[in-house]
Amino acid sequence: MASYPQENLCVVLIGARNPLNIGAAARAMSNFGFTDLRVVAPYEAAFREARSAVGALDLLRNAREFPTLSEAIAGCTLVVGTTAGVRRRLNHTLAPLQEGAPRMREHLTARRAALLFGPEKRGMSNQDFNYCHWLMRIPTVGSAPSSNPPLANLTNPSMNLGQAVAVCLYELIRDEAQPVEPSAPILADAAQLERMTQALFRALKASAYVKAGSDESSLEKMRRMVWRMTLNPEDAETWTGMLDKMEWPKR
Amino acid sequence: MASYPQENLCVVLIGARNPLNIGAAARAMSNFGFTDLRVVAPYEAAFREARSAVGALDLLRNAREFPTLSEAIAGCTLVVGTTAGVRRRLNHTLAPLQEGAPRMREHLTARRAALLFGPEKRGMSNQDFNYCHWLMRIPTVGSAPSSNPPLANLTNPSMNLGQAVAVCLYELIRDEAQPVEPSAPILADAAQLERMTQALFRALKASAYVKAGSDESSLEKMRRMVWRMTLNPEDAETWTGMLDKMEWPKR
Repeated sequence: MASYPQENLCVVLIGARNPLNIGAAARAMSNFGFTDLRVVAPYEAAFREARSAVGALDLLRNAREFPTLSEAIAGCTLVVGTTAGVRRRLNHTLAPLQEGAPRMREHLTARRAALLFGPEKRGMSNQDFNYCHWLMRIPTVGSAPSSNPPLANLTNPSMNLGQAVAVCLYELIRDEAQPVEPSAPILADAAQLERMTQALFRALKASAYVKAGSDESSLEKMRRMVWRMTLNPEDAETWTGMLDKMEWPKR
Repeated sequence: MASYPQENLCVVLIGARNPLNIGAAARAMSNFGFTDLRVVAPYEAAFREARSAVGALDLLRNAREFPTLSEAIAGCTLVVGTTAGVRRRLNHTLAPLQEGAPRMREHLTARRAALLFGPEKRGMSNQDFNYCHWLMRIPTVGSAPSSNPPLANLTNPSMNLGQAVAVCLYELIRDEAQPVEPSAPILADAAQLERMTQALFRALKASAYVKAGSDESSLEKMRRMVWRMTLNPEDAETWTGMLDKMEWPKR
């Protein structure tokens, strides 16, 4: 799916309290093609059976558990922390996700990197930040120091852990996922549209919708309308058939 | 935060079973600055106190509840469904999120749009899809038909509801550093499209195009066809008038 080896990324959850969040992180990893989950000092030992890991139970069972962050990130040559970004005076570079992710992807083409998430309530600690090369924040409302900050009660910078993992991993594959299918719709051709236009005209003529003497301008108006409908071939044929049917009983 | 009025987006959750997922959706909306949550036929009536709506309890309490999807999207001139994309032969354009979101943003500069999410287990139904102009999929592993599909047991296209909402809303604010140009076409709203659908049905019923006993499936088929025509308001009204006229003489 991605142009770099996705097994080069470790997702590290530090001190997660709720096993359902660990399961949700595993599910998001599986959704986006990542495999290496590491858990540091989880609050509940029985996280491995979390029901929230839909489709990702193997990934969760294979997660590695470490007593300390230092041990969890051994072997990684880039360590990136995440934060809601509300605490000022961080000693680290703080990149918005959409700017940080390309730097991580570049690293991941050849080397291992770790992406860290702190505990639900308080996020990563300053001690945790000390193991990081730099930090990323998801661009939530109030997540960046601003010269013109929104009112305090309108900000909600801190995301749910499982949702934060999902958004970060999405960004890490976002520009890699080549659409396999062209998303442009197949359109009806001019002959089909003209047949539909004529069928519409006949049906309306039979209904006395078209006023006497206005045949030509009505036909033009209908043609213009049919053309801008951007119909696909099947729909154009269906419409033509329906309009023929409406006209037919009156002949 | 965004260059378009974020209140123009309604997030619509259809038949959500788990109140915690509704709360999680509310939290993600609040994280990314959205406010208008609509809930269609939730499984549990007591969703409004979901503890997962951290920082978003007001948003959740202000959520509007509707018995049907049709009522929930009234007034929206663009309706976009979400799907894991594994069911083939959809009749709609299916855009990956990173391609669909810019189209939605363009629309949101001037008009209301709805983004729909189906129930946790089975996602949106074909009946739900019929109300959509087009569909989006998050680029998860296995979410797109591919000439070279990954092994079945390595795919996990279906995301958790709360995580899917978070990823979609992130994408909708992601590129807001660069303002979008307001060139979006003005589209007919859901109520207009439904009136046209009903007029078409009546006209065809009067023409014996609709076979006995197939009223419901025919109506669904017509709705699907009318919705994906991306009509402007004038054209929708003109069509409704024309179809009424075709039906009228036969009464």
